[in-house]
Formats: sequence, structure tokens, C-alpha cells
Amino acid sequence: MTTATDNLFCPEQQFYGPDSEKIYIQGSIHPIKVGMRSIKLSQSYRIQGEEFSTFPLYDTSGPYSDPSARLDLAEGLSCTRDEWHGNRNDLEKSPATRPSPMNGRTPLRAKEGKPITQMHFARKGIITPEMEYVAIRENQQLESWIEKFSPNGRSFKPVTPEFVREEIAKGRAIIPANVNHPELEPMVIGKNFRVKINANIGNSALGSSISEEVEKSVWACRWGADTVMDLSTGKNIHQTREWILRNSPVPVGTVPIYQALEKVGGRAEELNWEIYRDTLIEQAEQGVDYFTIHSGILIDFLPAAARRTTGIVSRGGSIIAKWCRAHNRENFLYTHFDEICEILRAYDIAISIGDALRPGSIADANDEAQFSELKTLGELTLKAWEHDVQVMIEGPGHVPMNLIEENMQKQLEYCHEAPFYTLGPLVTDIAAGYDHINSAIGGTLLASLGCAMLCYVTPKEHLGLPNKDDVREGVIVHKLAAHAADLAKGNPVAWLHDNLMSSARYAFAWNDQFNLSFDPVRTRQVHAENSPDKTGKIMEDNFCTMCGPDFCAMKKSQEVTGKP
Amino acid sequence: MTTATDNLFCPEQQFYGPDSEKIYIQGSIHPIKVGMRSIKLSQSYRIQGEEFSTFPLYDTSGPYSDPSARLDLAEGLSCTRDEWHGNRNDLEKSPATRPSPMNGRTPLRAKEGKPITQMHFARKGIITPEMEYVAIRENQQLESWIEKFSPNGRSFKPVTPEFVREEIAKGRAIIPANVNHPELEPMVIGKNFRVKINANIGNSALGSSISEEVEKSVWACRWGADTVMDLSTGKNIHQTREWILRNSPVPVGTVPIYQALEKVGGRAEELNWEIYRDTLIEQAEQGVDYFTIHSGILIDFLPAAARRTTGIVSRGGSIIAKWCRAHNRENFLYTHFDEICEILRAYDIAISIGDALRPGSIADANDEAQFSELKTLGELTLKAWEHDVQVMIEGPGHVPMNLIEENMQKQLEYCHEAPFYTLGPLVTDIAAGYDHINSAIGGTLLASLGCAMLCYVTPKEHLGLPNKDDVREGVIVHKLAAHAADLAKGNPVAWLHDNLMSSARYAFAWNDQFNLSFDPVRTRQVHAENSPDKTGKIMEDNFCTMCGPDFCAMKKSQEVTGKP
Repeated sequence: MTTATDNLFCPEQQFYGPDSEKIYIQGSIHPIKVGMRSIKLSQSYRIQGEEFSTFPLYDTSGPYSDPSARLDLAEGLSCTRDEWHGNRNDLEKSPATRPSPMNGRTPLRAKEGKPITQMHFARKGIITPEMEYVAIRENQQLESWIEKFSPNGRSFKPVTPEFVREEIAKGRAIIPANVNHPELEPMVIGKNFRVKINANIGNSALGSSISEEVEKSVWACRWGADTVMDLSTGKNIHQTREWILRNSPVPVGTVPIYQALEKVGGRAEELNWEIYRDTLIEQAEQGVDYFTIHSGILIDFLPAAARRTTGIVSRGGSIIAKWCRAHNRENFLYTHFDEICEILRAYDIAISIGDALRPGSIADANDEAQFSELKTLGELTLKAWEHDVQVMIEGPGHVPMNLIEENMQKQLEYCHEAPFYTLGPLVTDIAAGYDHINSAIGGTLLASLGCAMLCYVTPKEHLGLPNKDDVREGVIVHKLAAHAADLAKGNPVAWLHDNLMSSARYAFAWNDQFNLSFDPVRTRQVHAENSPDKTGKIMEDNFCTMCGPDFCAMKKSQEVTGKP
Repeated sequence: MTTATDNLFCPEQQFYGPDSEKIYIQGSIHPIKVGMRSIKLSQSYRIQGEEFSTFPLYDTSGPYSDPSARLDLAEGLSCTRDEWHGNRNDLEKSPATRPSPMNGRTPLRAKEGKPITQMHFARKGIITPEMEYVAIRENQQLESWIEKFSPNGRSFKPVTPEFVREEIAKGRAIIPANVNHPELEPMVIGKNFRVKINANIGNSALGSSISEEVEKSVWACRWGADTVMDLSTGKNIHQTREWILRNSPVPVGTVPIYQALEKVGGRAEELNWEIYRDTLIEQAEQGVDYFTIHSGILIDFLPAAARRTTGIVSRGGSIIAKWCRAHNRENFLYTHFDEICEILRAYDIAISIGDALRPGSIADANDEAQFSELKTLGELTLKAWEHDVQVMIEGPGHVPMNLIEENMQKQLEYCHEAPFYTLGPLVTDIAAGYDHINSAIGGTLLASLGCAMLCYVTPKEHLGLPNKDDVREGVIVHKLAAHAADLAKGNPVAWLHDNLMSSARYAFAWNDQFNLSFDPVRTRQVHAENSPDKTGKIMEDNFCTMCGPDFCAMKKSQEVTGKP
């Protein structure tokens, strides 16, 4: 291990703690193994007639939580996915590109006329290793669990590899997995799967270094980020992205127009299709798994945007708007959409069609500008699907609670059930300093209605760049939102998780409560600070400092009911 | 000023900052003046054709934010409310009780046969000073503002003194205001008013002192708590409450059974009606504004509670359940309900009928135990109304997102639209360490559907007693939830507030953004830490560190649209 690695894996970050271990579940169709965190419970809990003394958790931390993994940030993670596919005859080495300076691997792309996207295979009826991987990972495939733990009972759909294939074939789900990101542990985004969260990282011209951003990226995965987006806009964009990708077990998304703009010195009007196309290919060969592309903002929509309280608040959108006005021409990401799809298709990169006109204030929510663009995103979805390109749709933004449901309904209707990926929504404009919570409130409601992935917001939103603490806070708060939405949707594993937690609470099993919480480090620490003698030792008595011995409701409740 | 006062008003707490001042609005019917915080904006903003260079904010901080107020924690605040009523002939001095050791005032109570409750006056068609006070305070009375700023337009009801009176007469709103809490600035709780929040304070047997709890109480009001509940269960209950009441500009609630239990040495089975009754009177004469009383848990409901995952999690409820089982008799708070109402009526104390069977886990949400009790709470509501006693109803607890709407509907139906006052609901069981956010998520949805007051939850919930930082965090996060619900309900002042914030954001007016946020101290601090030269000086350029100059969407948007 290098010093850089040592810095990243300080004891604080080993949050699995003493009662958890990394386990792997083998595939039955493909040579895959899916990592999970298994919690060893201090006692056996009987839930709906079934006994649990361990509990497996969905795990986004990749090899970083595996004590047997060999980690070196300068080399990157193992290229495990390359091994799953055996000798593929549909890929070729990219002749124009140099091997990765980190692991020496030469980028691959689809051979001419050979489609390789997950959507292509799904439509052909083929279950790929990625599909089986995510089916196991979702951990919902047991029909008996659905019957026992989902309050919806049999109406919840079991996640089998075949179900994953069907959802991808219909465009209702995506697996962002560039062939050039072999370090990736595949995950699925769609409304019939667990709600996912994304963490944005990346520097701006005014701060942060490569090592800080790589550290934030790994840190985000350890706390639960399902994907990360590298939104760097400052110097060293290419190199920062290389480091992040080679060390990332989760899909990495980018907004390629940021790098394109750097290439023309920050002058939007000097952008052109060729520069943008070359940037797409450069990033595709590095292994970016999904691109945010603002193809839906049309010159006709700009007058409606100009009438708004906060105009255009999407960085990519404002760049395109400026270009359109400077040249008085239609958005080149719209006019070149077919060519964009051809590139994405060659690497199996998903497109996250950007909402350039998302509202930046509740006054602008659900307005003409927003919904005009959303309809266009729906048209572009159908076009991308013609190319077998996987699609998700980006969404708001700032939306008050009473307008959230309309957003979800219109997205499903206009965009043909392509997965919805949203920033928040923030339910008020005045929560600076607390916008992560603002976003979690709107996000929980939207996700419970069908939004597939929430983009985290940190406490620094509207104020500055997040640091590591902000990343952790943003990730956990949005995991909370995603999990609460899973419960609302009747996910049996989510219900089982809560049932175990409450059983542990009622049994005063403090260690189990810590381990089953979103943040075992924090719960242990807070509880220790509040132990009567401040020594940090876990109380063995059946009460805590909140109420003291005479006022513990659970203690009394057990005396009354004779349980447990 | 005493040293104690100096300790409380350290510079950190003077969060009004340089651009705000305390203003007072005079009543037109009664000799009242309503305090508000007026923000001086750095420029004039044009919103819907109207110009704003100042903005008045609802203010719960009382005299503590008035530089001209004379403050001495050992004496308490001025007895302003005593002056509003002139020479009342419906009150008498309580003969059996000694004057307050702090301000020397002798407790008052209604003369025999003279009803004095707000509900009594409302039903008689009388607008009290308290009713006019809250009408001004809600700041929604301008019909022109409703038309301009509420997205619902004319369907939002203007808050006039007469409207307040009607809502109270119907039992749809309450003004908790004990005649023995003359330091109080009245506030209204009801679904047609701003959503309110309560902060729980109070020590347990295992920690905290009187001065700490008084400090937390004042601290909670300064950050925005609309009421505080003193839930002390340890030593010095009486004295702690006296200090809190005499220094509280907001209504104070208690759960009298906690003190009654202390009187019998913590042995629930030794409780009896006489001890409880005397405790009610003791607290009534001190000035408690509302009592949580668990009259709705009946012996018949205990088998359903025993079948639950987490049994009974209400402290008061578990005490009563234990008493019922020990004596095999019906809940004495149910059998003596008429006598309870007679006591409350003599001081105009509101009853907050406790939900002893609120679910403590999502597995128990909306179950037989919960809804059986809720129906009983509805019956008790009608009985209290016969005595002209103001009522609110306490609610969950732990409820997943998909079951929240049913809770609100059933409460409105069973409890005849009496205001709903809820703890959360928490939308998952596994968020220990982040339960304030968990509660804000459920609370925002419930309040947007009609819940009138949210009880805050702090980051320490399920783990320990909150400290001052936790109180601030809990208060602000629930203010966020309440405000987001107000927006969803179309409150014109809430919309105006957000519009001003977004206009300030689009104008890069940083100071206005700080002042219009929930927490000007934190926003200023975070922004300063992120300024490029770390000096803390506010940036004058039209961008910030989040995006840097080339990637600022708002800057580009203005270049494109020609605004502002």
C-alpha cells in the first residue's frame, strides 16, 4: 500500500466496525460475485416467523471494505468486469488512443456494426453478467420475503435477472456501464428497483486538488453513493477524471460540455460540434458511464426562460443558451443528437438527458419553460432508444411540495417511463446552509412516486464547494430519503431492515442499533457521549439518558405486555 | 443585567445581525403591539409589480431581540399580557397559592361560573386581544398580497381577527395562553394558519441542570420555536418550570404525569387521581399553557398494543398502561376527564390529548391500537369542547410516507378538525443520528396536508438528551419543514419570502441571501469559509466558489436574457 492509500483508509473510515464483514454472493448464470456487507447481530430476531442472526446490506463501498483487496490509488482497482465476458468478438481496441497511464489498459469500443449496449442485449432476450449482478445486488429476489415483509404483499415484483432484462428492454431501467470502466460493480437505475443516489464531486477554478477529489469520490462510495458525477471545471480535468474512474467501483457520470468549454478558454460562443464530439470520445475511452447532455433546450424556449425569476440555473444549459444566442442557431446538441447516440452506443454509455431549464426557484417550478423542455426530452428518449442507447432524464430543481406529483406524472408520461434522475427537488428557496435537508424532503416524496435516482445536495449548496464532511452528510441524508421512498414503495428488504432495527431497539440491543443505522460511526459516537459516566461504554441497562430508568416507555411497555 | 443574562446573550446569539431591526405593529382593537423582525434589504426588489426594500418576518424571539428590553433571568420577562385586559371582573387571585418567587405575581383563576377561555369568547362573538395579536402576527391579512403572491390566488383565506375568532369558535384553531403566563406573546395553532413547531426541552434523571434547560428554552425561541415543552423528569421539576415559564415569550407545554410520577417515587401503580389533580393545579397556577394528557388509552386497547413490534413508546402512555394493568381498572385520566376539563377551563389551558399508542416503528403504523385510540381522542374532543376547553390532538410517531395521508384524513375525520400536533412522523426506523431530518421529511408532507404543529426531533433522538447545538439544528430543520408546508398550502407571505430570496440570489446580493435564510449566522459563516481568499469578505463579483466565473449559470443566464 502507498502512502496515498494509507491516508484514505484512516480508522475513521473503516465504518463496517467489529460486527460486520464483507461477503460475496456467486452468480448462477455468469462468473460473477456480488459484494455485500453482512451484519452479525448480537441475538436472533424473529420477524414474521423467520429468524435472523445476520443481515446482508446493499453495499456501494466496493473493494475498499474488503480486507483482502490489494489497493493502490496510483494503479486503480482491478479490472474485474473484463474477466466476466471471456473472449468477446464484438469489441476492438481503440486505435487512436493511448493506454491508461495508470493500469496500462487500452480502451475498447464496439466493432463496426456490432451493438454492445445493455439495451441491445436485453431486447435480444440476452441476460448479461451486468443484469445478473444487479439482480443479486438488489437482494429482493426471494418471493417468500416479499410475501412476508412487503406490506404490499404479492404486488411487489421480485427482482430476477429476467425481470432486470425486461425492464431494460422497455427502457424503464438502465445499467450505466461503459466497457472502458472494468473496475465497475454494476448497478441498476429504474423505478422498480431500489432508489439510488448520486454524489457530485469535482473541483472548480477556485479550489480543490486532484487528490482531494479522488478522496471525496471514494469517501462518497463508502458512505453509500450509488454513482458519482465528476463535475470538475478547473484545471487538470482529464487527469482528475482518470484518477476518479480508475478508483471508482460505482458508475461515474460527467457533463462533457464543461471540458469542451475549458478547451475554448471559457468562451461559450467559440464552442462547436467538433470540439464537443472529440471531448465525448476522449471521455468515452476513459470509461465514463453516463453523460449529462443538454440536448433538449431549444432556441424557441429561451423567451419563456427569460421571463423567469431565476432564468437558467443549469450550468450546461446556460452555456448552450449563450451559444444559441451568439450564433442565432439551434442547440448543436439537439441537431447532432443522432451522432451523439452513435458515439454512446459504441461504448455502452448511458445518456442522462439534461434539464437545462430546471427551475432554480419555486416561482419558476412547473412552468412553460420546464415542461416544454421535458416534452423535448421525451422525443429525444425515443430517438436514443432507436440506437439502443440507455436513457435517463434529469429533473428539478426547486419545486414546492404541492407541485411535485405533477412533475413525476408528466415525466412518466412525456418520457415514456425512462428513469427519472433529479436534483432534489428543493421544496423552498430559503434553506441555504440546510439545503441537503431541503432536497431530501422533496426527494423522498418524488422518489416514493417513482423517481429512480436522487442527486445529493450538500449543506454547502448555494454557498460554496463541499468538503469531505459535507459529502458524508449529503450522501447519508439522501440515502435516508431513498430508503424512506423504498419503504413507501413496499420494498421487502427495506421493511425487513426497519423491522430488525425496531426489534433491536425494543430489546435494548445497542450494538445492533448502531450497526443497522445509516451511520454506525455517528450513532456509536453520539451514544457514547451521552452515556451516564461519559466513558463511552455501552449501557447494559434497559434504558438510556433520554428518559432515565423511571421514564423508559419501552421498559414499562414490556412490563405491561410481558414481552420480550 | 445579571451575569446569567450576559451568558445567555453572547454575540453568537444576536442573529438579527446588522441588517435587521425589531419593529412593533400596533393593534387597532386592543392596546397590543406585535413584535416582528424587519430585514433591511440592500436594494429594492420588484415582485409582482410591488417594490420591497424591507421585509417583516414572523418572530418568536420575544423581548430577547429587542435592544431596549430590560432582561433579567432571575426576575423573568415583563407581564405584558396583564396590561391588555384592564380590570377584568372574571378573574380572582388564587387563595391557596403563594406568589411567584421570581416576579411576586399571585396566580389568577376564573371566578366561579365565569368562563374565560378563548373558545368561550370566540363562541360569544368576542375578539380578544390574543385573537387580534395572532391575526397581526400571521401577517397574511392583506388581501392584495394573497392575490399577488399566493399561487392559489383568492382561495387562500385572509387572516383577520374575525377569521381567527371563527376558527377558534369551531375548534379548528387554538391559542394556548394560560392567564398565569402574562409574559406570553400569543400564537395560534390551526390548519388555516402558518404551520408551527414545538421544541422539547427538559432534563432527565441522568443529566442537565436548571440553567442549562432555561438557556435551551430561550435559545429555542430565538431560532424559531413557536412553543416549548418542558419534559423534565429529574429533580427540581417545579423550580425548572418556574424559571422556564417566567422567561418564555412562547407558550409552554408539559406532561403533568411526569411530575405526578416523581411524587410517588417513580412507581406508576401508586399514582392516583388526587395526586394527579393536585399536580395539574400546581402547574396551572404556575402558568403552563397546554397540558399533554393521555386520556385516550383505554384498557381495551392494551392487547392490540401488546401484539406490536415496539409496544407503547409514549412515556405517559406506558405509565398509564402500567397503572391500568396493576389495578385492572380503566385509565383514571379517562374516567376523570370532566374534572380535568373543569380545571383547564379555570385558567384557559389548552389540552393536547396525548397519543399514548402512537407507533414507535413503521411496522406499527396505522394499526388497530393507533386508530382505536384516535377515535377515542375524537370523543374526548367533543367533551372538552362542551367545557369550552381548547383542544389539540397529538399524533405519530413512525409512519412510512405512503401511510401519512391516511393519518391526516383519519385525524380530521375522527377529531372534528381539532388541530393536529405531531412528532414527525419519522418515515423510517433506521435513521438514528439523523432523525431530525427523518422527522422533517414526514412532517413536511403531513403539514402540507393539514397538520398544524410539528414537534421537533433533534439529531440525538433515540440516542441521548439534546444539547444546545442539537436544539438549534432541530428547530431550524423543522422550521424548514413548516415553511415548506406553508408554501405547499399557498401562504402568500411564505411565497413572497422565497421570491425575495431568489431575486437576491439572481442579483448576487449575498447579504440579502444571508438575512433571508433560516440561519443567517450559518450562511454567513459557510460563505466566508468558502471565499477565495478565506478572509471571510463577501464577494462582490457575480459568481461564487461553487462554479467559479466561467461556469456561473446565473451570470450567463443574465447575459443571454439581458436581465437584470
